[in-house]
Amino acid sequence: MKYVFGIDVGGTSIKMGLFMETAELVDKWNIPTITTNNGSRILSDIADSIQSKMKQHSLSISDILGVGMGVPGPVSQDGFVDKCVNLGWDSFNVNNALSSLINLPVYAGNDATVATLGEMWQGGGKGHHNVVLITLGTGVGGGIVTNGNIIYGSTGSAGEIGHMHIDNNETDKCNCGNSGCLEQYASATGIVRIGKKHLSSCETPSILRTINPVTSKDIFDAARENDKLALEITDELYKYLGLALSHIASVVNPEIFVLGGGVSNAGAILIEGTRQYFQKFAFHACRNTQFSVAKLGNDAGIYGAAKIALSFH
Amino acid sequence: MKYVFGIDVGGTSIKMGLFMETAELVDKWNIPTITTNNGSRILSDIADSIQSKMKQHSLSISDILGVGMGVPGPVSQDGFVDKCVNLGWDSFNVNNALSSLINLPVYAGNDATVATLGEMWQGGGKGHHNVVLITLGTGVGGGIVTNGNIIYGSTGSAGEIGHMHIDNNETDKCNCGNSGCLEQYASATGIVRIGKKHLSSCETPSILRTINPVTSKDIFDAARENDKLALEITDELYKYLGLALSHIASVVNPEIFVLGGGVSNAGAILIEGTRQYFQKFAFHACRNTQFSVAKLGNDAGIYGAAKIALSFH
Repeated sequence: MKYVFGIDVGGTSIKMGLFMETAELVDKWNIPTITTNNGSRILSDIADSIQSKMKQHSLSISDILGVGMGVPGPVSQDGFVDKCVNLGWDSFNVNNALSSLINLPVYAGNDATVATLGEMWQGGGKGHHNVVLITLGTGVGGGIVTNGNIIYGSTGSAGEIGHMHIDNNETDKCNCGNSGCLEQYASATGIVRIGKKHLSSCETPSILRTINPVTSKDIFDAARENDKLALEITDELYKYLGLALSHIASVVNPEIFVLGGGVSNAGAILIEGTRQYFQKFAFHACRNTQFSVAKLGNDAGIYGAAKIALSFH
Repeated sequence: MKYVFGIDVGGTSIKMGLFMETAELVDKWNIPTITTNNGSRILSDIADSIQSKMKQHSLSISDILGVGMGVPGPVSQDGFVDKCVNLGWDSFNVNNALSSLINLPVYAGNDATVATLGEMWQGGGKGHHNVVLITLGTGVGGGIVTNGNIIYGSTGSAGEIGHMHIDNNETDKCNCGNSGCLEQYASATGIVRIGKKHLSSCETPSILRTINPVTSKDIFDAARENDKLALEITDELYKYLGLALSHIASVVNPEIFVLGGGVSNAGAILIEGTRQYFQKFAFHACRNTQFSVAKLGNDAGIYGAAKIALSFH
């Protein structure tokens, strides 16, 4: 039996998993992300952790097929990171850098894309080979897999759908500097932003007026109770998200959209609302694209990273 | 030296090319597309033409690596055609059907996608591996190549960007039944449609008022002469096309957009106008995507078809 490591590098912690080549997760642990000194300790901390875990499980170099890694920023197919602001990293080849510390092949990818591969392999997209994962969290990210392969894009920015320009009339600014990005409507913070606009622009009675501060979960909960204002807010989200997914479908025509991130905990109500607008906007040949909710939660990254390492064998 | 055939099946004629494996076009000819009886003669006409051309060039089966083919409709990666209305075809596997007639491997793809591969191989996208071709003709089509591979999509509809829903306020219907599709603005007929709307909605003097009927070429010609109304019309086209390309970039992040089809004869004025809006709408990591004009014209399809056949060897 051979093994791989799957690593998901986040801004505050690094999730790590040891997998058998048959996909079973053997061990799972976290180490903190030390971003001081331009994140110069991150890779040596990962290397130390891999080596001590190999010792603990009595594994030698020849037992390990490789190390997969998700990184929160653009990564080219050969491992070149072009500035990763959340980690303090400048531009360098992360595959080569980590590989030289542990003497194992390393395969890095963008974290959202790697999570997509994880969900396709063992999660909400299992059994499919053309999958788009949309991560609806603090921001909105995406990952594109066609015919079983990750799409990286020419500058590692394929699937950066959070900044798809979806409303030309928006006056509020997105973090990226543009206005009208999908993230301004479909992230957890975006939903709350729409919510506040609705709350302040009318007098409609609403459960939401009794809650402070209102979260995206409060808005979905109220919508489930048929709160009129909450339904208007979620309808606006569904419209923008359905429109963005119809754009994605016209480009890569996936079998299934997998919705992940904290907002996807809303579940069926989110899927059905979004699907309705998607079908209205989409080209007829794409209208039956399936929808599901991500299943691996925070483990999607380590699963996907393990899958990348395995796919090279 | 080995050879391949590249075939581009259109609604009125079938373009055919015999290529050396080193990319040189040896011979090029057309046969008519007989669409009567649900297009049942099309494949046998192609087979007859291939066989007579092999005889003419003294080639035997062992000299030919395979036959690539572009088809005007959705085609799955293994050659399944799901209704091809322009040819009268129902649903069947076109690779198997033609292969059984000529005893050679056949590799079919959607015509727009196949043309993309041709432009990447020997045309406006030469030297690049992440290319999006946008065909601006009677309709609007597209083809997506990432990392050198055609993206087919789950129902063969990847790159069907003509029906990207780009304006939610449009009241005119598109041929597809929806409203607000890119094709309604950026096809040759779409540009004339916008032109007529502008001409009838104002009294602004314009060269265009002296021409009847106005074509998309007339509109670009007038814009080059700084005709105010023509500039407003082309600006509207650039805005919609730039927006659609920014959506595409956020999904697949290509190195280069190649604009093809009759409208692309407008050249630099079209590229610069579209690029300006693209850069305004696109995520910063995609903003430097290059633009070029297709170079192979009507031969893009046979080149791309030849490339598909070669890529399997």
